[in-house]
Amino acid sequence: MRFAERRKRALATAAFEGLDGLLVTHGADVRWLSGFTGSSGAVALRKGSPAVLFTDGRYTTQAKAEAAGMRVVIGKGSPGLLATRWLTERAARKVGFDAAQTSVAEFETFRKAVPAEVRRGFFVAKAEFVAKLREVKDADEIAKMRSAAALGCKVFNENLEALLTGAESEAEFALRLEAAAKRGGAEAMSFDTIVAGGERSALPHGRASAAKLPKRGFVTVDFGVVLDGYCSDMTRTVFRGKASRREREVYDSVLEAQVAAVNAVRAGVTCGEIDEAARSVLRKAKLDKWFTHSTGHGVGLEIHEGPRVAAHQKQQLVEGMVITIEPGVYLPGEFGMRIEDTVVVNHDGCEVITSGSPKVWTQR
Amino acid sequence: MRFAERRKRALATAAFEGLDGLLVTHGADVRWLSGFTGSSGAVALRKGSPAVLFTDGRYTTQAKAEAAGMRVVIGKGSPGLLATRWLTERAARKVGFDAAQTSVAEFETFRKAVPAEVRRGFFVAKAEFVAKLREVKDADEIAKMRSAAALGCKVFNENLEALLTGAESEAEFALRLEAAAKRGGAEAMSFDTIVAGGERSALPHGRASAAKLPKRGFVTVDFGVVLDGYCSDMTRTVFRGKASRREREVYDSVLEAQVAAVNAVRAGVTCGEIDEAARSVLRKAKLDKWFTHSTGHGVGLEIHEGPRVAAHQKQQLVEGMVITIEPGVYLPGEFGMRIEDTVVVNHDGCEVITSGSPKVWTQR
Repeated sequence: MRFAERRKRALATAAFEGLDGLLVTHGADVRWLSGFTGSSGAVALRKGSPAVLFTDGRYTTQAKAEAAGMRVVIGKGSPGLLATRWLTERAARKVGFDAAQTSVAEFETFRKAVPAEVRRGFFVAKAEFVAKLREVKDADEIAKMRSAAALGCKVFNENLEALLTGAESEAEFALRLEAAAKRGGAEAMSFDTIVAGGERSALPHGRASAAKLPKRGFVTVDFGVVLDGYCSDMTRTVFRGKASRREREVYDSVLEAQVAAVNAVRAGVTCGEIDEAARSVLRKAKLDKWFTHSTGHGVGLEIHEGPRVAAHQKQQLVEGMVITIEPGVYLPGEFGMRIEDTVVVNHDGCEVITSGSPKVWTQR
Repeated sequence: MRFAERRKRALATAAFEGLDGLLVTHGADVRWLSGFTGSSGAVALRKGSPAVLFTDGRYTTQAKAEAAGMRVVIGKGSPGLLATRWLTERAARKVGFDAAQTSVAEFETFRKAVPAEVRRGFFVAKAEFVAKLREVKDADEIAKMRSAAALGCKVFNENLEALLTGAESEAEFALRLEAAAKRGGAEAMSFDTIVAGGERSALPHGRASAAKLPKRGFVTVDFGVVLDGYCSDMTRTVFRGKASRREREVYDSVLEAQVAAVNAVRAGVTCGEIDEAARSVLRKAKLDKWFTHSTGHGVGLEIHEGPRVAAHQKQQLVEGMVITIEPGVYLPGEFGMRIEDTVVVNHDGCEVITSGSPKVWTQR
């Protein structure tokens, strides 16, 4: 009954913040609280009433199967609106909703559904209320993330030879990875696969293009698979042809920075400290100017979740958080690279769940 | 200068509605007005000032190349916020924004950036302002949609034999289509490919599953490719094995309904009339009860755009609109099917841009 557990925790947190109800409409939040994977649903939580999942007629069978143990109401129109009405009927007076995931137009319909005499102060805007709870994964989620990460590694390893020696375009290589992922059971990719070779490796987010993999140079591959709803995320950079000493040195610095940040991870450390662990290594190598993004982010049902692992972030890591560690260096017009693992935070360190693929220098 | 033309039209429409500025943040709208394809951008339009595209440092080179002829401002933080400040500095007093595409949290930051003395009434919530303009495609867009549709047909035809006789799973067949699409130059698929065979063909939106294509029965394939930003959308249903008379009859009714709706399309006809053209054929065949969705929708930079081609919709078709015509019949526990074309509305009819793939009965 892990879903019931999560709903209980959400209501308890809401009560602590002075709320007597929660309206949840964001897909990943709805799934996390109910198990329901349909594209249109809302969960209403109210102390003293069994939680309800609202959806529409397309999902009658699916909702009852996936949200077993929950009351399911099939209705017409916006599930969020149905949930709002249900909350008002149950005399809720202070209902939290996710202001970052609700459009102005949608919210206006919810607000109007609240009787005028209790409308003022009824809705309390929260930024990522359930998303905050989702930052810490339970055992069931961690198991799923391990499986997704393992599939990612398997798919990468199977195609490493083609990456090192193939005569394909970036896009063709991406397609090869994606086909392997789907054959391996992935429902989807976590995001558009990044394959950036040669000079394009200096683009932090160069999507796979029609450019051929270079005769000589770095190729950065950043990709993820979705398995049972959970996203994997990993980046590996390899070298094709004969590298110069400089290329090798820059790679080694990025790897050193990445390993330093991974080694810094444990419960209680701040996200800013993790970022600094990577950044300080690159600073010593005079490369920090070219590390133009943050060190990582949480990952789970969505590819980008909290916490943000960035400079000066005061948020502390908590056991069960799953984050990426992905420093990179991008020298415009020359070359670039990024190395990324996904790790589970433990009380005394972390578990690297993407350890199945080598990140040491790989050249051919 | 088609982008300049579109911006002029947007401003003129805004002025007609009493607005003296527009804040545009939704990706497809930004692209349509500027040509910029990055994931983070905003366009600000103000009468008397040259239009500006706001984005961040990741997109410096790309924005200047794609939004040629427009002023580009690279800033830190939310592009929408930068655009709001720019509008206030240019003394705008009534600015339209898309309430359906702006979150409550985001809007709150925009609102706070407006000086207190002019804040009241500054922002005017519009539902899909630019999206409304985008419903009517210009010649350039129609050419791109023809190319996308032609690629979709080519990819389907090349794989028709595998669909009719292959021993693959639905997911494997979907992958085959997607690989062919990407090899053909598609940037992405318009949506998760639907492949629904046998009893699963009775699910209107059965995503490709691990189920094998049936020895005997219908298979519905609904997919689209994205080419140069524009989405194609088509559905074909084929039969594997020997069909019964009933199966054949139901298919013929759906095809008759689909053709009737296509033949009803021309500028000036209402969307409700198009829907009724399909629905009335199925009513005569006593199948309308199982036609559980609407007849179609607009398509363009996004897979679902206006107009809605549904029962009782009063909106009139306009020359240059691109819509889908996709009636279906779904007999629960038995079988189902859908047949879909994408058509361009003309003054005296329509152009079926997905005519490259046969939709007559296809059996093997």
